[in-house]
Amino acid sequence: MSGKTGKKETQGITIKKDEDFSEWYNEVILKAGLADFAPIGGCMTIRPYGYAIWENIQKKFDGMIKDKGHKNAYFPLFIPESFLQKESEHFEGFVPEVAWVEADEGKYAIRPTSETIIYDAYSKWIRSWRDLPMLLNQWCNVVRWETKVTKLFMRTREFLWQEGHTAHATDKEAHDEMMMILGMYVDLIKNSLAIPVIEGEKSATERFAGAKITTTMESLMPDGKALQMGTSHHLGQHFSKAFGIKFLDKDGKEKHVHQTSWGITTRLIGAIVSVHGDDKGLVLPPKIAPIQVVIVPIIFDKNKKETLAECRKVKETLEKSGLSVELDERDSYSAGWKFNEWEMKGVPLRLEIGPRDIDNKQAVFVRRDTGKKDTVKLKDLEKNAKKALEEIQNKLLSNAKKHLTDNTVSAKTYEELKSAIEKKKMVRASWCENAACEEKIKDETAATIRVIPFKEKEKPGKCIACGKKAKHVVYLSRAY
Amino acid sequence: MSGKTGKKETQGITIKKDEDFSEWYNEVILKAGLADFAPIGGCMTIRPYGYAIWENIQKKFDGMIKDKGHKNAYFPLFIPESFLQKESEHFEGFVPEVAWVEADEGKYAIRPTSETIIYDAYSKWIRSWRDLPMLLNQWCNVVRWETKVTKLFMRTREFLWQEGHTAHATDKEAHDEMMMILGMYVDLIKNSLAIPVIEGEKSATERFAGAKITTTMESLMPDGKALQMGTSHHLGQHFSKAFGIKFLDKDGKEKHVHQTSWGITTRLIGAIVSVHGDDKGLVLPPKIAPIQVVIVPIIFDKNKKETLAECRKVKETLEKSGLSVELDERDSYSAGWKFNEWEMKGVPLRLEIGPRDIDNKQAVFVRRDTGKKDTVKLKDLEKNAKKALEEIQNKLLSNAKKHLTDNTVSAKTYEELKSAIEKKKMVRASWCENAACEEKIKDETAATIRVIPFKEKEKPGKCIACGKKAKHVVYLSRAY
Repeated sequence: MSGKTGKKETQGITIKKDEDFSEWYNEVILKAGLADFAPIGGCMTIRPYGYAIWENIQKKFDGMIKDKGHKNAYFPLFIPESFLQKESEHFEGFVPEVAWVEADEGKYAIRPTSETIIYDAYSKWIRSWRDLPMLLNQWCNVVRWETKVTKLFMRTREFLWQEGHTAHATDKEAHDEMMMILGMYVDLIKNSLAIPVIEGEKSATERFAGAKITTTMESLMPDGKALQMGTSHHLGQHFSKAFGIKFLDKDGKEKHVHQTSWGITTRLIGAIVSVHGDDKGLVLPPKIAPIQVVIVPIIFDKNKKETLAECRKVKETLEKSGLSVELDERDSYSAGWKFNEWEMKGVPLRLEIGPRDIDNKQAVFVRRDTGKKDTVKLKDLEKNAKKALEEIQNKLLSNAKKHLTDNTVSAKTYEELKSAIEKKKMVRASWCENAACEEKIKDETAATIRVIPFKEKEKPGKCIACGKKAKHVVYLSRAY
Repeated sequence: MSGKTGKKETQGITIKKDEDFSEWYNEVILKAGLADFAPIGGCMTIRPYGYAIWENIQKKFDGMIKDKGHKNAYFPLFIPESFLQKESEHFEGFVPEVAWVEADEGKYAIRPTSETIIYDAYSKWIRSWRDLPMLLNQWCNVVRWETKVTKLFMRTREFLWQEGHTAHATDKEAHDEMMMILGMYVDLIKNSLAIPVIEGEKSATERFAGAKITTTMESLMPDGKALQMGTSHHLGQHFSKAFGIKFLDKDGKEKHVHQTSWGITTRLIGAIVSVHGDDKGLVLPPKIAPIQVVIVPIIFDKNKKETLAECRKVKETLEKSGLSVELDERDSYSAGWKFNEWEMKGVPLRLEIGPRDIDNKQAVFVRRDTGKKDTVKLKDLEKNAKKALEEIQNKLLSNAKKHLTDNTVSAKTYEELKSAIEKKKMVRASWCENAACEEKIKDETAATIRVIPFKEKEKPGKCIACGKKAKHVVYLSRAY
């Protein structure tokens, strides 16, 4: 705690990503200040740096859905037990994970998801075709009282998410909505989070409890497990029939609405850490980084004032051009300590400015992803910073794509499937659509069908499990 | 449901504000689509139009605190029972209203406020003077299982709020923080919500459970009850001693931090409805209105296309200048029906554009607050719209100020106090600072000391209750 080097011994990441991914993951999240374990079993605290990433994700996605006419609302945290019971599949799917509150008037579930409480409201609010489509979303906390091991961002009893809930006059409109939202998710995750995904449908077994179709985007984590990055469901009329959500159509007939629901969660932050991080810590994609550029002044006592003045000027210039910039003026830490700190925190671009740089009207650029150093003239700073951030964004995506491609293999036989799963691969294989084959694979390899892709070059051959004629090419792996 | 006039019989507000304020309040909120009663005792659903007001409040206040270095975070919904017990006053203040969840490992409170769970984290995160000040905030839901009558936005078991929690090296810094935040609240509420408040300190009895000083802003509702619009507390070292939040100061000594907490809630929306609404429904201050300008096209069959084209052009122009504009293109409703609808929803400014207006290159302006109509040249539209909105904003504040002034009286005797409270006034009176006098007044008049103002022209005379020499001039009234 004393002097400029006091913290050095505990600074930095001590575990290698490819030696112990799980411990590395925790160390990065804790040391970079993204989150902390909470003193409640299975819960976490999202610290400001982690929450700022979530705010950036929220801002982007909120803008996307509002542009398409969706509006935000807020529904109660508590759901009467009787509501959960109305859609039987939904009830069976969620009830094991529900936390209950006992009130004088009955038992309330703390929302694990809000279909039932929202659709009860829809049954009051929707009367006529004029009320459709109803396009609502809420950003909130949800609770699933899971008993499995806690994993920061990936698996916690409480997490933050958005849940969209729409009602439409026709099946086609609901289908189009589900697909449009999935498209927005893919856009967000690929273009802002720099994570490639395989998009498609879930098998019947893996569908959301109560859905007619579940679409998903799956990405592959460095430990060989797939992560479901978000889902968009076509609920058909399952809930509208259970909750009596009817409208008088233009043709004078009373009909049940067709519905969708869809969500992404704070788990996305876990994916960013996992996919892009390295042995020095976090590496954040510029488009969602809370700090895109950090300026570290190289200070010698006699030039301190001039150096800081120049750094502040640079900060202002870059901020005016729309970048998010931090100037690290703290004088109780050395420049070297600061370099390590900001690298651990994954800031995409570091600028170093010292007296000699000022004399030469230049700054030193250091890229977080490659560690590459460049000298840039101060007059070209803005242009070059933007260019560098764009390059970093693209490079992170292309690295992640390469990882996904390199770790995806085709299996023609059951033995090949088993061996590939053991080797932590994402496996492409043919499947007959029979749940028994799916179950056999799960029992024997711990892998599940993650996604039936929308676009797939390979044609289905024979089912990897039973050898009969297959209906789909699917992707299988172990999963979070 | 059929044709252009089908909904007319149920449209509009049927109750007069000054005849039955409480019923009028509910009718306005329900019919304007701000909120709905939820199927859970004491809970509400915030509908999109109400939530959009909250989003506007959030955006403004979030910007204000971030400008001063505060950051958002997210702490767990659940609080271990043992944490609540650590600060005894706090525990006694909140425990009657807590909803509990039983887990295998113990009992968890659903947060009624988050001091205890946040300060447990602070005791881990704060080590050195370098970690101070710690300036965090969270936007979240809280639950207070009250048994009193539910009132939409004003009193519900679950509500949304922000809670700021800061830790400082000195008492003075914490005091300054409390006062700075109170100043931001007053700025927000006066200048954006157009509601005047009396700012000052709470008496010891009315203080937040665990605080050293509680500052408040009180406004007066049309039913003569005061509404606490937000509070900012100096917590002193009460919690830092209970939770062991210590730091190593520059002088090498270990010290307990000095803390503040502060919050505003969705109850502010209830205040906006109450203060500005009239017999036609809502009246929204332009600065927080989700829709600032509504354009209603006056359509005749032969000119429909041209009229809509012109309206769209106007919408685009106004949006480009930063205004939030709705063009009501629905053709299943008459223009008259739309006028009533948007008046009920409190949109500050209505533009009517029909074929004759287009010929004359003009539009009709109608102000929601005064109902005054004006004809404005299309070329001056932007300038005039902004001017009209500014005038509406100012007029709403001056109306509300007049209401507060007209309904605030000075009482010199106990009889005058009793009579003024009966007449639903805010009463200015002298008080000796004795809790017994405060209690007597509460028991006999149902009024409480709402605020000990920071700025008060009158000098304290004799205590209104006991006749002894008074220490303060205070404001008293019944309250929500």
